[in-house]
Order: sequence, then C-alpha cells, then structure tokens
Amino acid sequence: MFTFYLVYQVSLKVIKTIKEITNWEFLQPVILVPTMGALHDGHRKLIREGNTIKGNKGTLVVSIYLNPIQFNDPKDLDKYPRTLDTDYETCEEEGVDLIFAPSDVEMYPNPYSIGVSENNISQELCGSKRPGHFDGVCTVVTKLFNLIKPKIAIFGKKDYQQLSIIRQLIIGLNYPIEIIAIETQREKNGLAMSSRNEQLNEIEKEKASVIYKALKAMVNSGESQSKHLIKLGKSIIEKESQIIKIDYIEVVDRSNLKKLKVIDRPALVAIAVFIGKTRLIDNIEIDFE
Amino acid sequence: MFTFYLVYQVSLKVIKTIKEITNWEFLQPVILVPTMGALHDGHRKLIREGNTIKGNKGTLVVSIYLNPIQFNDPKDLDKYPRTLDTDYETCEEEGVDLIFAPSDVEMYPNPYSIGVSENNISQELCGSKRPGHFDGVCTVVTKLFNLIKPKIAIFGKKDYQQLSIIRQLIIGLNYPIEIIAIETQREKNGLAMSSRNEQLNEIEKEKASVIYKALKAMVNSGESQSKHLIKLGKSIIEKESQIIKIDYIEVVDRSNLKKLKVIDRPALVAIAVFIGKTRLIDNIEIDFE
Repeated sequence: MFTFYLVYQVSLKVIKTIKEITNWEFLQPVILVPTMGALHDGHRKLIREGNTIKGNKGTLVVSIYLNPIQFNDPKDLDKYPRTLDTDYETCEEEGVDLIFAPSDVEMYPNPYSIGVSENNISQELCGSKRPGHFDGVCTVVTKLFNLIKPKIAIFGKKDYQQLSIIRQLIIGLNYPIEIIAIETQREKNGLAMSSRNEQLNEIEKEKASVIYKALKAMVNSGESQSKHLIKLGKSIIEKESQIIKIDYIEVVDRSNLKKLKVIDRPALVAIAVFIGKTRLIDNIEIDFE
Repeated sequence: MFTFYLVYQVSLKVIKTIKEITNWEFLQPVILVPTMGALHDGHRKLIREGNTIKGNKGTLVVSIYLNPIQFNDPKDLDKYPRTLDTDYETCEEEGVDLIFAPSDVEMYPNPYSIGVSENNISQELCGSKRPGHFDGVCTVVTKLFNLIKPKIAIFGKKDYQQLSIIRQLIIGLNYPIEIIAIETQREKNGLAMSSRNEQLNEIEKEKASVIYKALKAMVNSGESQSKHLIKLGKSIIEKESQIIKIDYIEVVDRSNLKKLKVIDRPALVAIAVFIGKTRLIDNIEIDFE
C-alpha cells in the first residue's frame, strides 16, 4: 500500500494553480493533450500517441479543464460529465507525467477581459449553431499554450472544426507548436467516442450508431455531388427520426470548411444531431486524387 | 569606412521574416521595446531603459512595425511617418542588439483570421473614438510576444490606455512577461513626444503645448471634483480653439480607466485633441494618499 502510494506520488504530478504551472521546470520536449476531463478511450488514444512521441525524455502533460466560456448554453455546461478522480486514474495508467487541472478562478480571475477569436473557419458548421463557442476554445487554448509551452499539442479529429481553428490560431499568433491530429476512436457499433455519450442511455447509444453508418454510406457511395450525398445521409438518419434530430449534414472543403457543391478537392462530411438534449457531432474525410 | 560597416554588421542585427525570428537563438534575458517606427527621443528613453536593464548580457530587441490593423482610419495610416533608415541609425546609436522589422505579408498572411481583444478597459477613453484600434494592438502585441518571447517589455505612459490593456493581456493570457512603464518624454514646451508630431508645423507644435499646460493646471489646482477639473482643462485649451479641437478630457480611475466623479483614489487625467487632422493624446497621473 505504502509503495503504491509512493510510486503514484513520484510518477504523476498534479498542478492546480497558475503560479505553480508558471514556475514549473518542464523536462523538454513538452507534449500537451488538452482535455475537458471525462476521459474515455478516445482521450487514451491521444495520450498514448503523446507517450510514443515523448520517448524516454520530456514531459507528457494532460490538461483537464471544463472551460466554461466555450459553453454557449449554461444547461449544457451543467450536465457535462465530471469524473476527475477517474480521470486521474486514467492518466496514471497511461503514464502521464503531469496533470494541469486549474479552477475557474485561476483561469478567469474577476474581472476577466481578454478574448481570442477566429473569424473565418469558426463561422462554418457548428459556428453558427454555438455562438461564442470557438472564441472560448481559442481563448483557453492560447492560455494553455502560454502556461505549458508545448512543442507538440495533440487534438482529435472528432472535433474537426476545432482542430482546423487551432491550426489557424497557431499560424496567426505565431506559436512554434506542432499539432498532431488523431483519428476518431469509435465504439464497436461505430459511434464516435465522446464525453457527451455518457448522457445517453443504452438504447440511444445503439441508435446513435446511425450517424457513422450515414457517414460511411455517403463516402462509399462514390457520389461527387454534395446535394446527393447530403440527401443520402439524411435518408439514413431520418429512419431514426423518433430519437434523432439532424442539426446539420454538410460537405465542406477540408482546407477551410466552406461548403462544396462538388467534391473536386479533399473534403469533409460533417454531421451534427440531437438525441434528446444531447448534441453529438461526427465527421469523415473524403480524399480526392 | 570598411571598419564602420563591419562594426555595424556585428552589433545590430536586422530580421525581417517570421522564419528567421522564430529560429533565432536569443541570448537571455530578452528585453523588447515594441514600436511603430518614426523613432524619437521618447523611444530613445524606452530603449535606454532596456539597455540599463539588460546589463552585460541578454538581447535588446526593438520591433519596428507599422501595424495596419490598429488603424481604424486608412488615411491616418497613409500619413503616419515612415523613417526606417533613420530608425536603424537611432537603434545603432542606442546599442540595440536586434531589430525585428517584418512586412505586412509576414505578419498577416492572406487569409488571416485570428484576433485578440480586450473588452473592458478598451471601451473607455480612446476606445469609442477609434473602434477596433485596441483589438489591433492586442493582436500584434500577442504575436510579438510569441515571436520574441521577452522576459521584459517596455512601454511608454504616453499611450496610457494601451499600457493598461497590455497589462490585462499579460494577466489574461498568462504571459510570464514583466512590463516596465516609462514616463512620457516631452519637448521643451511640454508637448508629449509622438511620431504624429511630425505632421504638425512649427506654429501648431507651439500651440499644442497648451495640452500639457492644461494637464498641469488641472493637477496643480488641488480640485477633487472631476467636473470642475474638466471645466478648468477645457477653458485653458479652448483659448486655442482656432487651432485645437478637444476630442475628450476625462478624469478616470487609474486601475480600470472608468470615469471618476471625485478623486478618491489614484487617478489619471487624459486628453485627446485634434490639430487639423492630427489627433494627439496626453495624460498625467494624479496620486491619492
């Protein structure tokens, strides 16, 4: 018991204050996996990639911070799962070196008046549906970049628009940070792993697999006209219309997330749906050669 | 001639590209003096302070970049003085180690979509008069901080609101940067030194000294009611009303730049005027004990 406790203390450091993280002397290179907690196998995949890149030296940092300013709907924030104790265990199991888990007052002392925003890609897809969301994402990611100064940051492709915006942020604000994008981890039935899946019951989880079925069918159809693709996707998801409401289905240019009429370049098919009050997103890349 | 050229090359490095500044290995600590060029004795004062702090080691960096996105009026940008060759000589004379003088396309490649903003202090004083100005300032300063990673950055008190906003930016985005604020350098007649003074003729320069006369009279009056102070300042400047138009005279709380009715805490008196199409600002601190 004592030995286990000692190992735990030595191997996983938890920092909760701005002051301590600012003064922390990181072993280089620093690899950052930013999360909002409620860690699942998708996060594990990101963390494992971080561990592989890190090799024998460096510091693998997982930030766990449920960033309130990226929630446009307070009810959405209220019901977002919080599993901090389990998250610590997950990080311990995955060989994380340091968790940064600040409180709201550490991150946004009152008064707080600084915002970072992206004004192009953030207008597409989820942007119009979740006003202010990506401003909140850009602001917190900028803060994390400044506090942790990673050489490499790892993001999942499930939040594809977020990933695209962070890439713009890094170029636009001149961060010397490399982004590594990880393929979406899925349940056996194809449902993209998400902390929000915790809000679904078993029946809803099973029905939600239709999102990925629709995406696969769209990609495999070989169709190049977006309107036909979207029609196909809609027809598949609408079979579950008693449980699932479509928020959007779009075919976009992968470089800027603008709508495409015809797939004549690398594209992305993106879907957002509501199951009850839970909003789920998923996407799949379509290559063009 | 040859020897001078060699000394020049060795002592003052000029970098114009993002790529080169990103890969530059700075001697630590790095001291940054951000400027828009058209350097005058006010800038020299900032640079000298930087040199004193730097001591025998470190890198004293002057950035020279006429940041287009902080000009809400394109005509104002057009007529802003540009004296790059003289600026290089000034930096050479003052013992600057490195000039960073990027082009617009280096700083804002097309498309450019990232902005940094402050939404509290930026609303006061010049904020409502120059919409978007402080967003442009915050964005370029964030970029310079990321590119040059200074330990210390030096700003002048003449642009007091800018200084206050940068302090918020540093706290809000968690930069480990110390700000040093330098007292305003003045002409013999009291006029605050400014690159914009170049746009004035000799008569206007002489008449513009009334701004500082008004500030001094306000502070020396011992009056604590803002409305009486403002009335006094107005009466003094309005004697030159054929040449000078008041944009604002305000008495504000120094900590947040909100209007004060009574001076019951450290305050700032701030004035903005137009002389022809040239806008001049100045301010003076009022202590409260």
